[in-house]
Amino acid sequence: MSAWRDTLTLETMAKERANPPFDVRSLSIAMHGNEQSLVQKERFMLELSRDPVFYMGDWQDLTKDQLRERTMQKIAALVHYVMNETVDVFTKRMELIGMHDPGFWTRFGVHYGLFLGAIRGSATANQFSYWMEKGCISCQGMYGCFGMTELAHGSNVAGLETTATFDEKTDQFVIHTPNLGATKWWIGGAAQSATHCAVFAQLYVKGKRYGTKTFMVPLRDPKSYQLLPGINIGDIGKKMGRDGIDNGFIQFTNVRIPRAYMLMKHTQVTRDGEVREPPLQQLTYGALLQGRTAMVADAANTAKKALTIAVRYAAVRRQFKASPEAELETQILDYPIHQRRLMPLLAQATAFGFTALEMTRLFEETATALEALEPGDPNLEKTIEMLKETHATSAGLKAFCTWATLEAIDKCRQACGGHGYSSYNGFPSMYADFAVHCTWEGDNTILALQSGRALISSYLDAKHKGKKLAAATSYMNDIEKVLAAKCAGESELSTLSGIEAGWATVAAHAVKKAAEDFEALVNSGKSRDQAFEACSQVRFVAASIHSSGYIFRQFKQAVERLDDAGDGVRKNLELVSKLYGLWQMEEKAAFFLRSGWLSAAQLDLVQKLVSEYCYELRKIAIPLIDAFALSDHIVNSPIGVKSGDIYREYFRAVRRANPQNKEHPYFERVIKPFIFRSPPELEDFDEIGVDEDIEEIREELEEAEKERIEAEKERAAAAKKATVE
Amino acid sequence: MSAWRDTLTLETMAKERANPPFDVRSLSIAMHGNEQSLVQKERFMLELSRDPVFYMGDWQDLTKDQLRERTMQKIAALVHYVMNETVDVFTKRMELIGMHDPGFWTRFGVHYGLFLGAIRGSATANQFSYWMEKGCISCQGMYGCFGMTELAHGSNVAGLETTATFDEKTDQFVIHTPNLGATKWWIGGAAQSATHCAVFAQLYVKGKRYGTKTFMVPLRDPKSYQLLPGINIGDIGKKMGRDGIDNGFIQFTNVRIPRAYMLMKHTQVTRDGEVREPPLQQLTYGALLQGRTAMVADAANTAKKALTIAVRYAAVRRQFKASPEAELETQILDYPIHQRRLMPLLAQATAFGFTALEMTRLFEETATALEALEPGDPNLEKTIEMLKETHATSAGLKAFCTWATLEAIDKCRQACGGHGYSSYNGFPSMYADFAVHCTWEGDNTILALQSGRALISSYLDAKHKGKKLAAATSYMNDIEKVLAAKCAGESELSTLSGIEAGWATVAAHAVKKAAEDFEALVNSGKSRDQAFEACSQVRFVAASIHSSGYIFRQFKQAVERLDDAGDGVRKNLELVSKLYGLWQMEEKAAFFLRSGWLSAAQLDLVQKLVSEYCYELRKIAIPLIDAFALSDHIVNSPIGVKSGDIYREYFRAVRRANPQNKEHPYFERVIKPFIFRSPPELEDFDEIGVDEDIEEIREELEEAEKERIEAEKERAAAAKKATVE
Repeated sequence: MSAWRDTLTLETMAKERANPPFDVRSLSIAMHGNEQSLVQKERFMLELSRDPVFYMGDWQDLTKDQLRERTMQKIAALVHYVMNETVDVFTKRMELIGMHDPGFWTRFGVHYGLFLGAIRGSATANQFSYWMEKGCISCQGMYGCFGMTELAHGSNVAGLETTATFDEKTDQFVIHTPNLGATKWWIGGAAQSATHCAVFAQLYVKGKRYGTKTFMVPLRDPKSYQLLPGINIGDIGKKMGRDGIDNGFIQFTNVRIPRAYMLMKHTQVTRDGEVREPPLQQLTYGALLQGRTAMVADAANTAKKALTIAVRYAAVRRQFKASPEAELETQILDYPIHQRRLMPLLAQATAFGFTALEMTRLFEETATALEALEPGDPNLEKTIEMLKETHATSAGLKAFCTWATLEAIDKCRQACGGHGYSSYNGFPSMYADFAVHCTWEGDNTILALQSGRALISSYLDAKHKGKKLAAATSYMNDIEKVLAAKCAGESELSTLSGIEAGWATVAAHAVKKAAEDFEALVNSGKSRDQAFEACSQVRFVAASIHSSGYIFRQFKQAVERLDDAGDGVRKNLELVSKLYGLWQMEEKAAFFLRSGWLSAAQLDLVQKLVSEYCYELRKIAIPLIDAFALSDHIVNSPIGVKSGDIYREYFRAVRRANPQNKEHPYFERVIKPFIFRSPPELEDFDEIGVDEDIEEIREELEEAEKERIEAEKERAAAAKKATVE
Repeated sequence: MSAWRDTLTLETMAKERANPPFDVRSLSIAMHGNEQSLVQKERFMLELSRDPVFYMGDWQDLTKDQLRERTMQKIAALVHYVMNETVDVFTKRMELIGMHDPGFWTRFGVHYGLFLGAIRGSATANQFSYWMEKGCISCQGMYGCFGMTELAHGSNVAGLETTATFDEKTDQFVIHTPNLGATKWWIGGAAQSATHCAVFAQLYVKGKRYGTKTFMVPLRDPKSYQLLPGINIGDIGKKMGRDGIDNGFIQFTNVRIPRAYMLMKHTQVTRDGEVREPPLQQLTYGALLQGRTAMVADAANTAKKALTIAVRYAAVRRQFKASPEAELETQILDYPIHQRRLMPLLAQATAFGFTALEMTRLFEETATALEALEPGDPNLEKTIEMLKETHATSAGLKAFCTWATLEAIDKCRQACGGHGYSSYNGFPSMYADFAVHCTWEGDNTILALQSGRALISSYLDAKHKGKKLAAATSYMNDIEKVLAAKCAGESELSTLSGIEAGWATVAAHAVKKAAEDFEALVNSGKSRDQAFEACSQVRFVAASIHSSGYIFRQFKQAVERLDDAGDGVRKNLELVSKLYGLWQMEEKAAFFLRSGWLSAAQLDLVQKLVSEYCYELRKIAIPLIDAFALSDHIVNSPIGVKSGDIYREYFRAVRRANPQNKEHPYFERVIKPFIFRSPPELEDFDEIGVDEDIEEIREELEEAEKERIEAEKERAAAAKKATVE
């Protein structure tokens, strides 16, 4: 018998927290960028946990319909804050909501991010005022959705087929869905929420096509939510996750809107059908950055949430005794293999957190510069450069951070064994909800390739034009030296700058390989686009390695910015960052060997160091997790509770969600007729003597089976002969 | 405008099927082992598709409760076949059911696999007859569940805490749950199906503990399904997938059963409390093999199902034009990066299929040998050897095949973009259902380590005892030569035997490294168990590489067994197997470089060959998928239909599942009060002049926000001071 007692997990957890070698609050502040952000987050968490609409105890058992209604209630409850909050406070709040309930985040974000973003980004000042008066900020009298993707078109926005044809006679646009493939598809909020849609459609004026523009199209009468004439909307129904958001399809059949409902900040259509094209096409891309930046942050937050559960569980879960004499079984976090499963992911989540802070800073800087820009501005070129860099960085980070986090969620689930499979412990919905991040706002593979394309361009600019590269790619500025660098051994591998040097070399090699393949393809006569296509695999690899190096560098720089305040924060965070850098090195070891930076023996050393650092990190894992500062309400997983009281919490949650003593729901209907049936088979079975010689019966049955198959084969052959393909 | 027409996808698919360079039926037969298996599977698929209980059109929208009832109906419908089928036909049928509805497979399998398996494996002949008379085969009057795992114990079966104490006075066992952690947990079928449970409990006789044994415990009165005295059962509720199976918890409070309800084939307890221990403890492990073997087959089948959808979708989905002049957009399967995403997975699924055939053969051979075994048998040692080998092989394959397939499912989902996220296209439930394979019947990490442990033992046996190793590890027989081997270049990389040689060398190096680390640890004074624990990471790596090599070898041998019948089957299958072998080499390239088998330049060649083979395989991808022989009913995914008519099928499926024209479910209740509210905030907002200078207001709000935060910080600091931690 083991020494079970109800308080054991509590005692174990308390022990894990005793005497951390760093100040947990200080580490937490460092992880949140500053104290204000941490305090703000704590305030948001408190608000959510006390608001009955945000109760999460029954969440996993809600049906799709219940979830949708609950989600709308949450929106109604939150608009209050939006109306009184600055944009950056609101952004932080949204970040938390992403962790609390991703479906709600999406439904809220469709209106406040995509729909309002489309108006902000594409409406003239007058148009913006008009829609504000109509209630687009307060959601009074209107709720918006964002009509971009179609059944047959997703990534290729320029290829969308919905048409917006200008009718000069009436000064109206006619919005039309010309075929099934052009049906607007996956439109969040369309099925049940929206009164208006920002529709992406091909602009046609006087028979000429001008490409994809945005049009404000009323869908429903807000007083009754009845569909307007020409609008056909259907519910897209069940999906992998985020069932709280009501995705729908929309078909437009010759729907007429006033000319002024085309958003005309960029392209303008005058009363008499003159089309004025925008001077700065590129700058409209700024809007894409916000979503990607938010997703990098969400990847970091969600990874932290998953790790919070898996690490706390592993700290108090015990399985197998180290020896027959041991009083207690071993904490599973003490097994080297379990440390190998979780500690690198813990380091990665921490790395993503610092990367997200930097990405957010970069985005805000870029957005501010873009907003300040006027036509003919002397800062134009510099701003476009910044936009390009932010664009490439966000594309790569969105792809690789969301992929890695999705994988981390499932690894955390698996690390919790069977209990990870229970909905009440949070992983199933976390995975299902998060999975779409790899697809929307740019399919990850396509984004990774965009990042790779930018890297090739940077490399070639530096090589052929002697251009000085900016921050993200500056490691390629002294390219020959970087390419030739070799690891000096343990002395280098155990320092941040040594690890950074390794990433610079291997990333430079990967980018060089991609760029050379690309140039060879161009020289062989391919167009640039064809050449990029043909070298997509190496391009992808370059982006992948560059991103790992970039993330490590963000982490390193964050560590280096910390004062060594004697609170242990910097020293311990340095351990975490080294583990991240070396573990990724091990994961991508083939490229380190291939580049010559690592020798075979040095790779063994990397593996040894990773194991050692996992062991070191394990010792501070619980206080580190505490510094993530996620409340039990937000984590919403009984096996991940802060107290460590996992079994009682889990048992309670399961019982609360599944009350006993109901009548059996289908005993009379299904089970009773089944287990008390007397089918003929059994009588036959008895007749031919099941108790005497079951083997003989089996052989007979097998013979019969073979005959049946032969007959069928003959029938099939005959049928084949008889019919013409 | 693109050239949309409703028939385009049909035409595209037809073109993909025109003139395949091999006979599709012959390939299909090869993939199924023989024609009989293929015909049988086709018969099963026909039966399922015509049986109304097996209708799948509404499946994705069923609630957990509906799914459970439907699942019970399926069981009632299928028992008919079980009663008339030989074991191997039934096994094949179960294989198909695993693809059709994994929750149903589990619920059916809990009774027929686990419960009945426990009786078969652990009951004496008399006991078996008794339970057969009670209805355990026909499910008449009883339905079984399998009570192994507990809330606090999963992997460590020997540590289970439920007690079975022999009461000599009454000749009964008392089954008891001593604490919360000992609550039987995750018991499939407990919540709603079972009348009886095969309970794993610690046997206590006269105060002495004899370890975990199996006891038949009645749970419910079959006539009413009311719980029997002392039994507390609760529903475990929602989980990631397989909601059709009713997992529950069970607590026993001094439940008395007759002594004869202990299954006594191995350990026996006599009337007067004498305990007779079994002579051959190991042989009871045979039962574990069946589940693992089934899971290897399920991994292959499910991977094929996922690939069927993703490859068919990629063949008819078009996105972006190759040039502005092109009439049609490009099929996404024509993009090199998309080939890189799917073709290796297609090769892997095919490899798993052949591996599953071999694993099944091995299992059946072992099971037959085990059944034939008598105490004192001269074949004992040989059979134990075979059992060990089958055990190690199945452990590694279960782990790595289920991991790889789980990953493949999500990669296939992502390759279908947004449509992959829709429940109606099958990936969400496929992933959620499959995910548990990585956990149950042996956590994958633990199984992989068991496989690694066996590899170390084999290596050391060969090295120190000069033992000739059996099939799975025979590549280590001429160890020095194998370790020293180097790749001869393209001539070797482009042949099956060349690729095989590479896998032998790299696997031998990995096993050697693990064995040497292990020996060094033992020599440093650690116990064998401690040493195995401490080298778990290298052990894991050895198992991983060995498994990839093993799978490649099964594929290679299957290809080599084919006659070159001039039907193109062998040649094309050889291409697929080479792609698998080389792609895995690329994936694990660091170990190939590390071992010295590949040079850096040769690795580049491997990468080039992988890309080329992806391109070659793409050309035959659709006929290859057809040879998987999965009916549209089984695939159950509109974007994966055989015809290629994906958009119409998908649109129809979504509409069927989500009928329009219902009243808005919560407009009056939630939306109307929300969008027509007049909250005070807005009035304030107007008063302070929202239209005049929004920036100024923001600044004011920010100021207020900052003050609030400062105040809170002060409050928090004061509170911290005032309280004792």
